[in-house]
Amino acid sequence: MNTLRRTLLTSLALAVVSLSPLAAAEPPATKERLVIQVSDKDPQKWNLALNVAGNVQKELGAGNVEVALVAFGPGISMLTADAEVAGRVGEAITKGVAVEACANSMRAAKINKEDLAENVVVVPAGAVEIMKRQSAGWSYIRP
Amino acid sequence: MNTLRRTLLTSLALAVVSLSPLAAAEPPATKERLVIQVSDKDPQKWNLALNVAGNVQKELGAGNVEVALVAFGPGISMLTADAEVAGRVGEAITKGVAVEACANSMRAAKINKEDLAENVVVVPAGAVEIMKRQSAGWSYIRP
Amino acid sequence: MNTLRRTLLTSLALAVVSLSPLAAAEPPATKERLVIQVSDKDPQKWNLALNVAGNVQKELGAGNVEVALVAFGPGISMLTADAEVAGRVGEAITKGVAVEACANSMRAAKINKEDLAENVVVVPAGAVEIMKRQSAGWSYIRP
Repeated sequence: MNTLRRTLLTSLALAVVSLSPLAAAEPPATKERLVIQVSDKDPQKWNLALNVAGNVQKELGAGNVEVALVAFGPGISMLTADAEVAGRVGEAITKGVAVEACANSMRAAKINKEDLAENVVVVPAGAVEIMKRQSAGWSYIRP
Repeated sequence: MNTLRRTLLTSLALAVVSLSPLAAAEPPATKERLVIQVSDKDPQKWNLALNVAGNVQKELGAGNVEVALVAFGPGISMLTADAEVAGRVGEAITKGVAVEACANSMRAAKINKEDLAENVVVVPAGAVEIMKRQSAGWSYIRP
Repeated sequence: MNTLRRTLLTSLALAVVSLSPLAAAEPPATKERLVIQVSDKDPQKWNLALNVAGNVQKELGAGNVEVALVAFGPGISMLTADAEVAGRVGEAITKGVAVEACANSMRAAKINKEDLAENVVVVPAGAVEIMKRQSAGWSYIRP
């Protein structure tokens, strides 16, 4: 094998290798992902948000979809342990829904970590969480 | 042509062919697509949703944009034949807007297929429909 | 260098060059971008929208995120010079938030360009603006 041929082969190999990151840029298309926003102090909206989470899991199969629910603003009170939907929030978490509370909104509403329903995760800023999930390819529903 | 050359040519051909699916991953950028969510039992919101559909078609040209309107939750009553916006819903459908009613929400509100305005399409779960459209690249507006 | 070799080299060069537009199709992943919709005539929602803009800039660093706020429908009155949040709207603009008013909604509400807070930009159709930003990769939050 002469030098030219070696160079050609190397270039080809590099060309093919350089395709990998591009291929990785394609959406994996394996799992649907949905972030649900709750920003109203309205139990009807809270129940609707939980219905959306449940219906999406039922329809697609809980194993085929990732669901996150992010509460901020006046919606933050949905996630306290004494909220009227606390039981349903707990069930959603058990069924694999990631439930997240905005720390900024908690401060504004004087809600502490201890006041939250069990297994609710505190995130620094709910809006940033929602934005980041969307730019990672998640769909967004705001009931 | 010797074997090495043949191998090189084949590799090149494969490398080029393997680009096609990547090229297909690029957004087609032909048509804007918009899914509008209606989840409130509020005629003002219903009219706003219909305004959005109409303005988008007017601004971009009805042939250059696909618009879908999906109603679920308390918003489902927008799509009955006796809703106060039924006339406008009919017009929107005539102008090419796909109007979809969530079957889960219909059951909850005891609304049958026969109660819906003409040419409204029933989908199993409104939220799933909205999510799937978004992951296929549709924009989302919730008035 | 014989003809075959020259052809091979040219093909390789073309194959590599043809990768560039594909690479460009990858999201640049440099800056997060967020469009915030205001479509309610509700000062609490207006403040929440401004909180979202501010929190996102604070959390990510104002230089690392582009934020646009688009008002349409009944939300348009948020952007008049005499709105109760006019001061906060002005501050947001100073901090780099693009604030846009829907011309269709202005006409419907009989609001003129002169009635708007300073540096608010008029766009032909708010919904189209939101849709176009989303299809360009912006995230969407509707408080």
